[in-house]
Amino acid sequence: MMQKPFGVAIVGGSGYGGGELLRLLALHPSIEVCSVVSRTHAGSAVHSVHTHLTGVVDLTFSAALETGLLKRYTRAAVVLALPSGLAGTTLAGLPELPPSTVVVDLSGDLRLRSPESHAQYYPEVPFEGELRRRFQYGLTEVARSEIASATHITNPGCLATAAILALAPLTALDEAGVVVLDAKTGTSGAGREPQASMHHPSRYADFTAYKPLTHRHEPEILQCLGAPFSQRFQCMFVPHLLPVSRGIFVTAYITLARAESAAGAAERFREVYHTSPCIRIRTAPPRLVDVVGTNFCDLFVTSRGTQLVVMSALDNLGKGMAGQAIQNLNLTFGLPEQAGVVLPGLGPV
Amino acid sequence: MMQKPFGVAIVGGSGYGGGELLRLLALHPSIEVCSVVSRTHAGSAVHSVHTHLTGVVDLTFSAALETGLLKRYTRAAVVLALPSGLAGTTLAGLPELPPSTVVVDLSGDLRLRSPESHAQYYPEVPFEGELRRRFQYGLTEVARSEIASATHITNPGCLATAAILALAPLTALDEAGVVVLDAKTGTSGAGREPQASMHHPSRYADFTAYKPLTHRHEPEILQCLGAPFSQRFQCMFVPHLLPVSRGIFVTAYITLARAESAAGAAERFREVYHTSPCIRIRTAPPRLVDVVGTNFCDLFVTSRGTQLVVMSALDNLGKGMAGQAIQNLNLTFGLPEQAGVVLPGLGPV
Amino acid sequence: MMQKPFGVAIVGGSGYGGGELLRLLALHPSIEVCSVVSRTHAGSAVHSVHTHLTGVVDLTFSAALETGLLKRYTRAAVVLALPSGLAGTTLAGLPELPPSTVVVDLSGDLRLRSPESHAQYYPEVPFEGELRRRFQYGLTEVARSEIASATHITNPGCLATAAILALAPLTALDEAGVVVLDAKTGTSGAGREPQASMHHPSRYADFTAYKPLTHRHEPEILQCLGAPFSQRFQCMFVPHLLPVSRGIFVTAYITLARAESAAGAAERFREVYHTSPCIRIRTAPPRLVDVVGTNFCDLFVTSRGTQLVVMSALDNLGKGMAGQAIQNLNLTFGLPEQAGVVLPGLGPV
Amino acid sequence: MMQKPFGVAIVGGSGYGGGELLRLLALHPSIEVCSVVSRTHAGSAVHSVHTHLTGVVDLTFSAALETGLLKRYTRAAVVLALPSGLAGTTLAGLPELPPSTVVVDLSGDLRLRSPESHAQYYPEVPFEGELRRRFQYGLTEVARSEIASATHITNPGCLATAAILALAPLTALDEAGVVVLDAKTGTSGAGREPQASMHHPSRYADFTAYKPLTHRHEPEILQCLGAPFSQRFQCMFVPHLLPVSRGIFVTAYITLARAESAAGAAERFREVYHTSPCIRIRTAPPRLVDVVGTNFCDLFVTSRGTQLVVMSALDNLGKGMAGQAIQNLNLTFGLPEQAGVVLPGLGPV
Repeated sequence: MMQKPFGVAIVGGSGYGGGELLRLLALHPSIEVCSVVSRTHAGSAVHSVHTHLTGVVDLTFSAALETGLLKRYTRAAVVLALPSGLAGTTLAGLPELPPSTVVVDLSGDLRLRSPESHAQYYPEVPFEGELRRRFQYGLTEVARSEIASATHITNPGCLATAAILALAPLTALDEAGVVVLDAKTGTSGAGREPQASMHHPSRYADFTAYKPLTHRHEPEILQCLGAPFSQRFQCMFVPHLLPVSRGIFVTAYITLARAESAAGAAERFREVYHTSPCIRIRTAPPRLVDVVGTNFCDLFVTSRGTQLVVMSALDNLGKGMAGQAIQNLNLTFGLPEQAGVVLPGLGPV
Repeated sequence: MMQKPFGVAIVGGSGYGGGELLRLLALHPSIEVCSVVSRTHAGSAVHSVHTHLTGVVDLTFSAALETGLLKRYTRAAVVLALPSGLAGTTLAGLPELPPSTVVVDLSGDLRLRSPESHAQYYPEVPFEGELRRRFQYGLTEVARSEIASATHITNPGCLATAAILALAPLTALDEAGVVVLDAKTGTSGAGREPQASMHHPSRYADFTAYKPLTHRHEPEILQCLGAPFSQRFQCMFVPHLLPVSRGIFVTAYITLARAESAAGAAERFREVYHTSPCIRIRTAPPRLVDVVGTNFCDLFVTSRGTQLVVMSALDNLGKGMAGQAIQNLNLTFGLPEQAGVVLPGLGPV
Repeated sequence: MMQKPFGVAIVGGSGYGGGELLRLLALHPSIEVCSVVSRTHAGSAVHSVHTHLTGVVDLTFSAALETGLLKRYTRAAVVLALPSGLAGTTLAGLPELPPSTVVVDLSGDLRLRSPESHAQYYPEVPFEGELRRRFQYGLTEVARSEIASATHITNPGCLATAAILALAPLTALDEAGVVVLDAKTGTSGAGREPQASMHHPSRYADFTAYKPLTHRHEPEILQCLGAPFSQRFQCMFVPHLLPVSRGIFVTAYITLARAESAAGAAERFREVYHTSPCIRIRTAPPRLVDVVGTNFCDLFVTSRGTQLVVMSALDNLGKGMAGQAIQNLNLTFGLPEQAGVVLPGLGPV
Repeated sequence: MMQKPFGVAIVGGSGYGGGELLRLLALHPSIEVCSVVSRTHAGSAVHSVHTHLTGVVDLTFSAALETGLLKRYTRAAVVLALPSGLAGTTLAGLPELPPSTVVVDLSGDLRLRSPESHAQYYPEVPFEGELRRRFQYGLTEVARSEIASATHITNPGCLATAAILALAPLTALDEAGVVVLDAKTGTSGAGREPQASMHHPSRYADFTAYKPLTHRHEPEILQCLGAPFSQRFQCMFVPHLLPVSRGIFVTAYITLARAESAAGAAERFREVYHTSPCIRIRTAPPRLVDVVGTNFCDLFVTSRGTQLVVMSALDNLGKGMAGQAIQNLNLTFGLPEQAGVVLPGLGPV
C-alpha cells in the first residue's frame, strides 16, 4: 500500500487512547501511524496487545521514538497517549523532532493555565509554566483557527469535551444563573490498568458517582468557556459511572434570566454549530449507541420558561479523546476537519 | 405451614409490581399473600409467569377477588398492581371488602391532588375527586402517622420516592434557590409489556433521557415536599434510562442562600432519618448494587459553600414500589415498619 | 461525491440487516446504496429510523424499487433484508431488473435444498423448488468460485456461518464421530421487532437456551458441510441467548478416531484459510469484542488426544449477515473479496 | 435479638464467598455468624467491605479465630473462605476447636483424591494425603448421609456443582458414549481481587472461553460421578466467561446407546431429585435470572433419539458455593437441608 502523506508516532501506545488512535487512523485516507512506542511491550506486535486490530494494523511496538520515520512525511505529529503525570518528563526526554512536527498531549497535565487551579487539581504534576504556555487547548469546535496554526496541542478531557460543547452556544448570553453538569461516563475512561473500582463483578449492574464537586474537568470546562461565563454562572459538576464500557452523556441544566423557547434554543445551537461536521443537533434526547465508535457529539436542547436543559453524548475514546485529536491533526495538516472521522455508529452496539 | 396473621390480595398480579410483592412477602414473618388476581392468567400457577418464584410461591392466579379469603385474617389488604388508568374502575368493580380492609394502589392514578396538575400530567385518567380524597399519599418516612391510621393509600412513584427522600430534610430550610433532580432508572420501571423503546438490542449499552422537564413525577415530588419548599425553590427534573434492569439513582443539586458544610449537611440528614430503619446515610456516593433487591434507600450528601449535592439510590421495584407498600402495610397493621423488609443486597449482583 | 461504480438497492431497509448494510457500504470504496425500500417508512429519512447513520447516510426510504436507479451503475444488486417468509412473494412482485443484476436474499427462506428438511424446519414457507434452484448458497469461504459466477445468492444464517467456518476444515477427514455445536448469540439476531423474550428487563443479566436440537440452522450447517461429513458425524446443535446485543460464539466439540495434536489441528486450519482475508486463526480463545462491528471470523482450535475443540466468533450482523453479503457482492462484481470490509473492532466496546 | 442455636465462624471473610455466607446466614432461622476473620481488615466493620450488608450485618472483622465464641452454641462450624492454596496451612494454624466443630473448606485444595490428578491440576498445592482423607466431598444431593455424619467437608466447585447435578441421574445408565460439558460462568467466580482479565472495560460486552479441556473442575466432576461412569463416557469440559457477575449455566450433551424420549429422561430426573428441595426440574430451558441470588439449581432435559441434552443453572456464589455450604451445615447440624436457603430469585435482576 502507498504511504499516506502525513505520519503520526504514538508514544504510550498500549493503552486505550493509543488503541483508539490506531483504530481510527487505520480508516484515515491521508494520515497513517508510522511508529508506536511502548517500553513495556517493545518488540511485540501491536495486535498482541490490541487484539481487535489483528489483520488491520501490522506494526510492532518500539522501545523509543525514531525521529527518522517522521521525516518521510509531508508533515508529521507525535501524540503522547500516556498516563497522567508523564507529559513533562517525556517531552523533555524526546529526541529532537523535525521542525514542523506537531505535538499532541492527550493527558490533563498541561491543560489548566492557572497555577492555583493546577496546584489544587493536579497536585502531583509540576506546573512548568513555560512548557505549558506553548500548548494550545484543543477543543476543535471552539478554537479552530488557533488549533490550525498551533504546533503544540493539549487535547481536552473527555467529560470536559461533552460539557463544553453543551454550553459553548450559551457563552454569548448576557445573563447570570446556575449551571448544573450531571455527567455519566463508561468505564473505559479509567484506562487499561486493572483497579478495584473497575473490577467487573463489582461494576456490573452498578451505577455510582465519584469526585462530586471535586473533579479535575470542572476547572477545565470553566477555563475553556471563559471568564465572563464562568463568573456569571455558578457551576456544579458531578461525574457518574455508567456500567458500560464506552460513552459519555452530560445533562446540563441552566437557569436563565429571560425565558427562551425550546425552538429558539435549538436554533441558537444550530447556528453556532452549522459549520461543525462532527456535531449533530438532535430533535430528541441523544442516545449513547448513536455515538459509540464515532467522532460525533450529539446535542439536544429543550426549555421551560427560563429553564434550559442541554444534553450531550459522545464516545469518550472517540470524540472525547482520539477522534478529537485527529480532528486537530487534520486542522494542523491543512486537511478538512472531518477527514477520516465521519464514521457511522454501530446502531445496536 | 401455619397461616400468618395478616393477609394480602393482589389485583393485577402478573406484572413486575405483583411479582415483587410476592417475592418480598414470601420472606415476611407476619403477612402473606392469600390471593393473586389476573384475568389474563386465571387458572395458571403464579410461578408459570413469575418463574423465579417456583418452589417458593405456590398459588394460582384467580379470575376475581374472593373477599371470603380476606376474612380469615386478623386484618387484610388489597393491593392494586395494575397498569396506569385502571384504579378507578377496578375499585368501583370490587366486591364489598371486610370493614377494616386496607387498600393500596401502586399506580399514579390517584396521587396528584390538584385537578389542574392531574389534568396536565394524567390527561387520560379521570380525576374522581371524591375517591381521590380518601387516599393518603404513602411516602413512609414523610407521613408515618397518617399512613398508620389510613385505610386507603396511594403508593408513591419510584422516581418520586428517591427524589423526595433526598430533599425532605431540606424542607425545613428557610431559603430559596434552585433544585435540579437528575434521575437515572433501570428498565424494569417500564413494566412487563414489550415495547420498542425497551427492546433489548436497542437498549443494550445505551443511555438516554426521556420526558425532560415533563415527567409526571415532578408534580408528585413538589406536592409531597409542600408549598413553602416548592415555592421557594425552582425545580428541574429529568429522568434518564440506565441500561440495567433494576435500580434508581437520583442526584439532587441545590443552591442555598447560606453556606453549609458537608459535615453539617450530613448531620442534618442523620437527624431527620435516625428513626428510619430503611434509610442508610452513606459516607461515600451510594451504589446501585448495594440497594438492588432491598428496601433500603441509600443517601449521601456533600457540599461546597452554598452548593449542596444529595444522592439517593434505591431499587425501583423494592423501596420504590412493593417494598414501600409493605412498609405501609406494616404501619397500618401495627407491625414494626421494617418487618420483613430488612433484606441484604446481593453484593456483586 | 462521485458515484461509485457498483450500486445496491435494499428491499426491507428498516431492520437491523438493512441498517448494517447501510453502515458497512458507507465505508466501501466501490459499492454504494442507491435505494432503500421500506413500505412502512416510505418518505422518511433513512436516519430517522437508523439514527446512528445521521450525518453519514443521506437517503430517503422509497415505497418501491425503482429499477432505473440500478441502470446507472457498472453493475448492480438487489438485497432482500426482509423478515422470514417474504422472499418468494417479494421476488415475484419485483419489476424487471437490468439483465446482470445480482439478487441476494438474507432470509432463510431459500436455503434448504431438501423438500423434507425445508418442510420440517420452515413449515410456513412454500418450497418453490424452481426459484430455489437458482439460488447459490453464499458461504464465501466455502464456495468462492460458485458465488463469483452466481447471480442469485441465498445468504447463510448467522449461527450457521460461525458453525460452518469452525467445521469446514474437518470435512476432509476420513473419520466418524460426534460433533457438538454449542452456540451463543446476542439479541440483535432476533431483529428489530419487540417481543416478550427480548424485553430488556427480562433479558438483562440473563442467559438461557432456545430451540435445543430443533433450530433451523442445524440442517443448514449439515447441508453446507455435505453428505460425507454429515453422515459420518452425528451432530447436536443448541443455540443460547447471550445478554449482549451483537456477537456469536460457537464452541464445537469433535471426537475423532485418530489423535491430533493442537499444533497439527491449528496447522490444518491455517492451510485451509490462508487465502481467506476475513478469517483470523487465533492462538487463544477468541473474544467477542475483537469481532463486534467487523467482518472477521476469529477461530481457535485445541485438542486432547482424539478430542478436538474449535471456537468461532463473529458479529451476527456483520460477517454473520451484511458483511458476508458484501463479501459475496465483491466476488460477483469482480472486486477483491475483502474490499471495504477489513474494518477494525472497537477494542473495548 | 436472641442467639440462634448454631454458630459459624468465617475465616477469610472479606471475599465474595465470605460475603455470600454472611448474606445468606442473615436470613437463616437457626444458624448465625459469630465471627469473621480477616487479617487485612481486622478491626473494621464487616459492612465497610461488604457495603451491601450495611444495616443487616453488625459484625467487626477479627484478626484471629476466637474459639471461645464457638462454645456458646449447641454446635458450631468454621468455614474457610480463602483463596486457593491456603487451606492446609490455615487448618494447621487454627487453635484447638471445640470437639464437635464442623470444618468446611470452600477452596479446591482438598477436593481431588488421586495424587496424580491433584499434582496435574493443583501443582502449587501440597497433597497432604492424611488431612485430605478426613474431608468428605460436599455435593449435597449426591452424598447426603455421608455429609450429615461428617465433621470435615470440602465444598464442591461452582462449575462442578452445576455439571454434576446435570449428570448424576445418568450414572445409573449401563451405557457408553460421549459427554460434552459446555459451561458458562459469571465473573464473580474469579473472586474479589482485580485482574486484567476481569477489568470492566475489557470484559463488558465480551464472551470468551478459558482453560479449554484443562480446567480443574473436570477431574472433580469425574471423581464425583464415579469410576463406572467416567470410564464408559469420554468427557470434554470447556468453561466460558459470561459478561455478567453472577450465575452459571452448563449445557451437557450426552450420546447414549439406546434412544430415550424427552419425557422419559425428564421422568428419570424427577425421580432422582424428588426429595431434593433445592433442585427444580424445569419444562423449558432454565434462565439465569431465576436462580441468581438463590440456592436453587434449575435443570432441564430434552432428547432426540440417542442424543440427550441436559441444562443446569445456578448462582455460583449461592448454590455453587455459600448456599451449598449452608445446606451441608444444615445436614451436619440435624436441620432440614433447605433451612434458610429457600429464597426466591429476583425476577428481573
